[in-house]
Amino acid sequence: MSEYILNLLPLHEGEREEFEAIAPAATHVYARSSTVTAEQLAAATVIFGWPRAEAMKQAISLKWFQTMWAGTEEYDGALPEGILFTSSSGSNSRSVAEHMLTGLMAVCRCLPTYLDSQRAHVWKDEGPMKTILGGTVLVLGAGHVGADFARLCQALGAKTVGLKRTVAGPIEGFDQVRTMDEMDALLPRADVVALTLPHSPQTEKLMNEARIALMKDDAILISAGRGSVLDQDALAKAMTAGKLWGAALDVTEPEPLPADSPLWDVPNLLLTPHVAGGMRLEITRRKCVEMAQENLRRYLAGEKLHNLVI
Amino acid sequence: MSEYILNLLPLHEGEREEFEAIAPAATHVYARSSTVTAEQLAAATVIFGWPRAEAMKQAISLKWFQTMWAGTEEYDGALPEGILFTSSSGSNSRSVAEHMLTGLMAVCRCLPTYLDSQRAHVWKDEGPMKTILGGTVLVLGAGHVGADFARLCQALGAKTVGLKRTVAGPIEGFDQVRTMDEMDALLPRADVVALTLPHSPQTEKLMNEARIALMKDDAILISAGRGSVLDQDALAKAMTAGKLWGAALDVTEPEPLPADSPLWDVPNLLLTPHVAGGMRLEITRRKCVEMAQENLRRYLAGEKLHNLVI
Repeated sequence: MSEYILNLLPLHEGEREEFEAIAPAATHVYARSSTVTAEQLAAATVIFGWPRAEAMKQAISLKWFQTMWAGTEEYDGALPEGILFTSSSGSNSRSVAEHMLTGLMAVCRCLPTYLDSQRAHVWKDEGPMKTILGGTVLVLGAGHVGADFARLCQALGAKTVGLKRTVAGPIEGFDQVRTMDEMDALLPRADVVALTLPHSPQTEKLMNEARIALMKDDAILISAGRGSVLDQDALAKAMTAGKLWGAALDVTEPEPLPADSPLWDVPNLLLTPHVAGGMRLEITRRKCVEMAQENLRRYLAGEKLHNLVI
Repeated sequence: MSEYILNLLPLHEGEREEFEAIAPAATHVYARSSTVTAEQLAAATVIFGWPRAEAMKQAISLKWFQTMWAGTEEYDGALPEGILFTSSSGSNSRSVAEHMLTGLMAVCRCLPTYLDSQRAHVWKDEGPMKTILGGTVLVLGAGHVGADFARLCQALGAKTVGLKRTVAGPIEGFDQVRTMDEMDALLPRADVVALTLPHSPQTEKLMNEARIALMKDDAILISAGRGSVLDQDALAKAMTAGKLWGAALDVTEPEPLPADSPLWDVPNLLLTPHVAGGMRLEITRRKCVEMAQENLRRYLAGEKLHNLVI
């Protein structure tokens, strides 16, 4: 039976032809999530993209669905039984890693304070700064994002240590990979602590008051992944009392962060509204397309798909 | 005759001993620029540090002076005739280069806008961002700072082109080194244009209205070195009209920038008050110390000194 590929990815010129070259015998239908029809959904054997979760029950012919995001929670319980379900995990890790590095460097150079001066039209020297060069970066979570961030830090001259639940061997980007239970011993030696963990019962408020206290007085905390990993109140309290050099958070709990949160105004704390990843860079979009193409090749060849969700 | 080394550098523990090990036969006197005495100045055959220019005429025994900065203009006409005069050129190039990279990444990720939102306690997604990965960075000036900046950009995946008056061969950090007269041909192909030029009649307003117009509509301009190299009014006008993705300037003309300058409020323009270099990082201070030590070794051995001025 021939495949009916419903392609909802944001494609650029020439990319339809790339999909069609990989699967010349298939029917290729291109649509957007907002305009896709019930007939298209019902006919599709393969779907790429970001359809609304509630539309998925109409996909009665579906055999395989690859979402264009790394996260898959929104489709929990929404997909037909027995299909193959793959994510685009890793597609935006470079974007997230660059955002983390940007936040890190911004607080090293006191940009939040300098921007306040700029808005006040004030030319004022704020004195000492920090560099990543020669520092030790401790990354909690050694997945795509953590490893990409570590690679960037290494490229700028930092030493990197990754923390995982279980260590299976070296990971590119990390000078060392250690187990999570070594965290409390390693926190006092880190110049930068970066959180890249997903939400789970094990990670909830993992970075709490006691662990923030274990950090160097002039260390920097970076948070991506999920906001629930960090005890925000403890951070705001510690930093307001002078602990830490700075922090850069792209995730909070809850999101959006309420307007009355103390986090907004903590000195040298940079807060961005969960914008590290997503489809903000062309390289992320292109990577999603390439991940769909590679998995399509594998699917047609009967090989195991990448990024299987279960 | 034995040397009298007047050391005005900001030394840390153990560093006096390092100097004394290099010149065990010399008299080593440590002081600060603010507390140095007329007797010390009169006796000194060697001075390291940053004495006031007007104090230098008291240094009647002086044979060699090494300033702790890269710039030397403040001593023009202030030094005794016939002495050796060396600078610490290159000591802060990593700091300046990191500041430039930080500014570049900050405007790539729209941090000026996100910080405005943060100050207003507003959680607002600003959409697309940019990455340095795969982009072309054109650096005007291929000295210490330009080359260090290029090296950092390369490490993050950019292609780098350096512009010099005359090309003598490859320079580490640059994929290509070209001559200044190719600038107008290269500007339209650059994603980032970085100014690292000193002030001179040749560089005055080199980056003018016509050359800004040659840049890509979504390019980024970075300015370190000297503010006079850039026509600020032309930049403010062009960016306010929508030209360029963003800019990060650490130098202006004049400095401090007057409070009524239009530059302060240009969207996605980051302005810092000439704080990229100076003695803000420990690595800069240490490099100055090491440069003094290496030149002291050379001086005592009768070898040619590094960073001779003139």
